[in-house]
Amino acid sequence: MKIMKKTTLIIAAAALFMAANTVSAQNQEQRLTPEVMARLFPAGVVSPECNPDGSVTFRCQAPNAEKVELECQMYNGNRPMVKDERGVWTLTVTPDVPDIYPYAFIIDGTKIADPNNMYIFPNEGFKYSIVDVRGEAPSVQDIQDVPHGKISYRYYTSQNCKGIVRPMCVYTPAGYDPKGNEKLPVLYLIHGMTDTYETWFKVGHANIILDNLIASGQAKRMIVVMPYANPYIEMMAQGKADRYDSMDTDLITNEIIKEVIPFIEKNYNVLTDSNNRAIAGFSLGGRQTLACGLGHPELFKYVAAYAPAIFGNEYETNFANGTYAPIETLKKELKLMWLGTGKDDFLIQASLGLEEYLTKQGLKHTFYNPGGGHTWMNCRDYLELTAKELFK
Amino acid sequence: MKIMKKTTLIIAAAALFMAANTVSAQNQEQRLTPEVMARLFPAGVVSPECNPDGSVTFRCQAPNAEKVELECQMYNGNRPMVKDERGVWTLTVTPDVPDIYPYAFIIDGTKIADPNNMYIFPNEGFKYSIVDVRGEAPSVQDIQDVPHGKISYRYYTSQNCKGIVRPMCVYTPAGYDPKGNEKLPVLYLIHGMTDTYETWFKVGHANIILDNLIASGQAKRMIVVMPYANPYIEMMAQGKADRYDSMDTDLITNEIIKEVIPFIEKNYNVLTDSNNRAIAGFSLGGRQTLACGLGHPELFKYVAAYAPAIFGNEYETNFANGTYAPIETLKKELKLMWLGTGKDDFLIQASLGLEEYLTKQGLKHTFYNPGGGHTWMNCRDYLELTAKELFK
Repeated sequence: MKIMKKTTLIIAAAALFMAANTVSAQNQEQRLTPEVMARLFPAGVVSPECNPDGSVTFRCQAPNAEKVELECQMYNGNRPMVKDERGVWTLTVTPDVPDIYPYAFIIDGTKIADPNNMYIFPNEGFKYSIVDVRGEAPSVQDIQDVPHGKISYRYYTSQNCKGIVRPMCVYTPAGYDPKGNEKLPVLYLIHGMTDTYETWFKVGHANIILDNLIASGQAKRMIVVMPYANPYIEMMAQGKADRYDSMDTDLITNEIIKEVIPFIEKNYNVLTDSNNRAIAGFSLGGRQTLACGLGHPELFKYVAAYAPAIFGNEYETNFANGTYAPIETLKKELKLMWLGTGKDDFLIQASLGLEEYLTKQGLKHTFYNPGGGHTWMNCRDYLELTAKELFK
Repeated sequence: MKIMKKTTLIIAAAALFMAANTVSAQNQEQRLTPEVMARLFPAGVVSPECNPDGSVTFRCQAPNAEKVELECQMYNGNRPMVKDERGVWTLTVTPDVPDIYPYAFIIDGTKIADPNNMYIFPNEGFKYSIVDVRGEAPSVQDIQDVPHGKISYRYYTSQNCKGIVRPMCVYTPAGYDPKGNEKLPVLYLIHGMTDTYETWFKVGHANIILDNLIASGQAKRMIVVMPYANPYIEMMAQGKADRYDSMDTDLITNEIIKEVIPFIEKNYNVLTDSNNRAIAGFSLGGRQTLACGLGHPELFKYVAAYAPAIFGNEYETNFANGTYAPIETLKKELKLMWLGTGKDDFLIQASLGLEEYLTKQGLKHTFYNPGGGHTWMNCRDYLELTAKELFK
């Protein structure tokens, strides 16, 4: 290579870049400036670009579009992007606080993930990208130079779901020893509606939050299991379900109890008593958490619902019809009942109702009601706070 | 819930669906028909839909677009999609053979991933979606009811890359025991240019291929390590590199030898002699494989290059300047030298040149030259064939 003519290498590199679906490349070795990136990467732009002043510049190449907007959870609503002479639409935004924000471009009404950003929000339906705006000091959700656990993608055959193979993500902390003397407690952590088993990992940074909390002694060492709470898509694809019942909690409660817990307790070095099992979940996963957790205090002593998708006063019904265990049982059994919902969350009313009901019934609980809405920025906050309370 | 009025639940479900970024939902429990999916999922369409006759229907909602095309690796070039009265663009295509195909929509010149498909091609630049068209009988790349290994996401701090934290994916086979008597051999498997450490997992199905080959006795039990061969993006983001040298192989060779191998041999129950180490890679990863593997026969006895990004006769230069070990050394040391490149691969000429050179020099090798181009359909084929040859 050292003897090859520069021009040959330039052509070679260009060919490879073209094959990688890029626009053009004129040199294989140079500064990775936005201009160079623009040549190397397909949509011809760098996006997002986190600037030293804390702002973020988003760019979207759509020369033929009439209108491009940025939907970004840094703010409410959509904001128009501005087109330059190359057909690249740009907008620079500064978030109030550094955080990890989902965003999407809306090109003439069609919402898309940022073609230049490798970080995607795992979801069955919408496609958001995520941008990680870091502050001066690293936060609990930023990867730091501490011992790192791992996320494993596991697969099991679910009889509860008619024999389909199902995935899950499992976090094990640094130094976890499958055969050692240390048996770990387990948190079962459930995603929201249309999210997947990857969302708590890729967007929720569950592994990084746990790494940092464990390294600083703020959380107990634990395993975190992230099952896939929506089996319907694959079941229907295989002709094993003919309808999608999103509000029903029986299928996922059975999945956790009959499939996921046994799989974990067979394959991991864990404690298997209810004092060492917790369940938490966001949104629809919060609904499932309440059904599975409050319904089974013999299995879970720690229950945490993040902006749970419950409606009206259905918790009263659930206590009355046996979906949840009797209040008196829960008073005796539960070590933690935690409810967190943001003030701007569209589900706040039901959480306020549940909170009032639990208070009236005398069930000890924590209610966390910060600012913010139905977002993963809040979710990471909820996870951090509850992880500190578990198994203590 | 069972007592709540149906209308309340309908409103509740609708609110949740809206929050999940959907268009509308009129019932929480009904058949998951395309019409229902269209209401539940944001872009309002089901895509892709694999039909019983082996065809695939792609749908893209873009009511304001002038032109929408489907780029799909089932065929060459782009094909126009047809707009219906709802503004949904549709095209049905039948692949010649069932396989896993990348595709993208091109809306008025802007290439995007399918907003409705949760399966994304991990890449730094372009955003393709992937569709898995299954045949009558399951193939080696389809998940089957066999014992499943796992993919773990691991993180390490790389001194070779100036202290940044780096990710990798690691496959361990079913029944792997970190402390048991069985020590496993290791395949280091590298992605192509602009791909990431996830691409061999999510697109290459490396874990599924190995699960199936191991279950049927066609491959030895092994660990497969998928490092991230491009550290430049994160290094530049942290101000620790000021240029992107894609053709250089020194940084990644050092990364594998000084960081990745020591990490694996410290953290996994593996065999640590050269008879039990293999290296393989695709495209730019093939270039890196040749440099690292042929350059270090004291470390690797098995070397497999898939459509390697080598240009002109630079292999002669690399043998001459010591980037590769002397041919006579390789003749003595290597147990497998495997080269695979498709007949339609844009890099075929260099592979033909290398093949001729190795023949002339008397270095025993396998040359696999099937149909197909510079694609991941071919990659999975290459991995299947080489995995059967390793450590035997």
